[in-house]
Amino acid sequence: MEETVNLDAGSGGRASARLIENVFLKYFGNEISRSGNDAAKLSGQEGSLAFSVDSYTVSPIFFPGGSIGSLAVTGTVNDVAMLGAEPEYLSAAFIIEEGFPLADLEKIARDMADACDEAGVKIATGDTKVTPKGACDKIFISTSGIGKIYAHRPPSGSAAKPGDVVLVSGTMGDHGLTVMAAREDASFITDVKSDCAPLNGLIKEIIRTCGDVHVLRDPTRGGLATTLNEISGQSGVGIEIDETVIPLNPAVADGCSCLGLDPLYLANEGKLICIVPADRAADALRVMRASKYGQEAAIIGKVIERDPGKVWLKTAIGGKRYLDMLEGAQLPRIC
Amino acid sequence: MEETVNLDAGSGGRASARLIENVFLKYFGNEISRSGNDAAKLSGQEGSLAFSVDSYTVSPIFFPGGSIGSLAVTGTVNDVAMLGAEPEYLSAAFIIEEGFPLADLEKIARDMADACDEAGVKIATGDTKVTPKGACDKIFISTSGIGKIYAHRPPSGSAAKPGDVVLVSGTMGDHGLTVMAAREDASFITDVKSDCAPLNGLIKEIIRTCGDVHVLRDPTRGGLATTLNEISGQSGVGIEIDETVIPLNPAVADGCSCLGLDPLYLANEGKLICIVPADRAADALRVMRASKYGQEAAIIGKVIERDPGKVWLKTAIGGKRYLDMLEGAQLPRIC
Repeated sequence: MEETVNLDAGSGGRASARLIENVFLKYFGNEISRSGNDAAKLSGQEGSLAFSVDSYTVSPIFFPGGSIGSLAVTGTVNDVAMLGAEPEYLSAAFIIEEGFPLADLEKIARDMADACDEAGVKIATGDTKVTPKGACDKIFISTSGIGKIYAHRPPSGSAAKPGDVVLVSGTMGDHGLTVMAAREDASFITDVKSDCAPLNGLIKEIIRTCGDVHVLRDPTRGGLATTLNEISGQSGVGIEIDETVIPLNPAVADGCSCLGLDPLYLANEGKLICIVPADRAADALRVMRASKYGQEAAIIGKVIERDPGKVWLKTAIGGKRYLDMLEGAQLPRIC
Repeated sequence: MEETVNLDAGSGGRASARLIENVFLKYFGNEISRSGNDAAKLSGQEGSLAFSVDSYTVSPIFFPGGSIGSLAVTGTVNDVAMLGAEPEYLSAAFIIEEGFPLADLEKIARDMADACDEAGVKIATGDTKVTPKGACDKIFISTSGIGKIYAHRPPSGSAAKPGDVVLVSGTMGDHGLTVMAAREDASFITDVKSDCAPLNGLIKEIIRTCGDVHVLRDPTRGGLATTLNEISGQSGVGIEIDETVIPLNPAVADGCSCLGLDPLYLANEGKLICIVPADRAADALRVMRASKYGQEAAIIGKVIERDPGKVWLKTAIGGKRYLDMLEGAQLPRIC
């Protein structure tokens, strides 16, 4: 084990998984925290609740298609919703650097309020800390979300079964490439914007229509490749996807080839991976395409019995290769 | 209104109140977020829940009597408990600076686990972000907590009534002075340590014994003076306290007079203010003194009808003066 925390440990990939296992789960491991889903399932006399948290440290704080504010709401709303829950309340904690412009804070707050309105959630409680100049870079926001689980059998990363079909709700990599281009001032990358969006409405439609949805996950840090690897590991199955049918915005494909990035490892903030029994796949696809957040949804592959814990990619040139988890930090501070 | 966020805005005093009112409540104001209590009360089919959040940016991260880890658990546990709720689950989000020693992260995680064990809560869900070196100072932790409200009538900052008696559960200012002394390397200040402790057990005893508890609040940032001012404002009453009976650790009194600090404005992390009808005060005091976290509890004053929104201090030399809210940032990064 390394002796310091490296950037990789925040990437959402393999190094993050090691840090979580070796430090956090070592001390905080319990049947709930070990579930490995986007949100925790709490069962009590009060019914089942989904509970999730994320910190947002994205840089720059404003980017095409969103801001740290819209991200802080939609990211947590989506994590709660992925458990088949209706997000209801958020908490919001702000860590602000001394001297941060109030006008920017207002813009962020307005973006958060707009995202809350669209998602139908309320910010119930908050906190503000201000650090001396230099002790934090502009502003960080942590949001926690809770919502009642309505799904009869909540989707879970460990519920994929051989024969299931794998869908994505739209193009991959838009958020990651957009933030990177905005940060590095890569002005030759145009026509890209973050996909940042609340998916709770779409998810409710999918679950209502398909009934039995095995897995719902949002491919954020680490992207599609990493999230599918997590699912294959948690479910003990193999996954096979077809590169040629994965939806890609042409501008993202171009930008990625300029910069040498793989869109399958880039973060998405308004997309979901959905794994359903084969006989529900057409319904799931139809529901997604009927939503403004799923117009380019596609069936991209299937769950297989062999090679548990592995993801196979059928490539455009007809080959087949393992698609590994993200190793290293492709892009820090992407969310 | 200032054009940038100043350190004062994180002090918990008047500048914090302005920022919350002018920015956050302007955009996020709703009947829940406007309650002004330590935790929000959520009512739903699932019963009533208390929901709270705090970010911890304390510097130094280790100090006599605790660490950022123990603080991150007990602070949020206490906020939830103050609403007459049993804290059950926490979320924990870590923002870590690249290069942070893993051994320190382990110590922090161990402190958090110990505090969770003592408080009887579980960390259900978490998040880790790693920022490049220089983008955050060592480590920040945000915790959110939820718990079921068991109090028949949850205590509230707006429920103080003329004739009520004001108690504190112990000595004031220990946490604030300790952190400041550790940070400034004020080695002449000895024998002080943070009072950082989970109060949910004590609170349950107080509510069970006294029944009707009007107000419970923990005097953290801004200290006793600021919290009493908030209560007097929210309840529309005056409060009169007696300086000579406010419990003070002699080492804290000495340290404060050396440094020119007023212990009534210093943060506490294991103390509560309790306001009860006069006929319950003796019971409340007895219960507190029977707890290891309330040995030095005292009745310090009463709620009065005149001067709503004001706090009077009867001074040691027999005078009487207004005790105002904290204005400015006495001590940044104290929690």
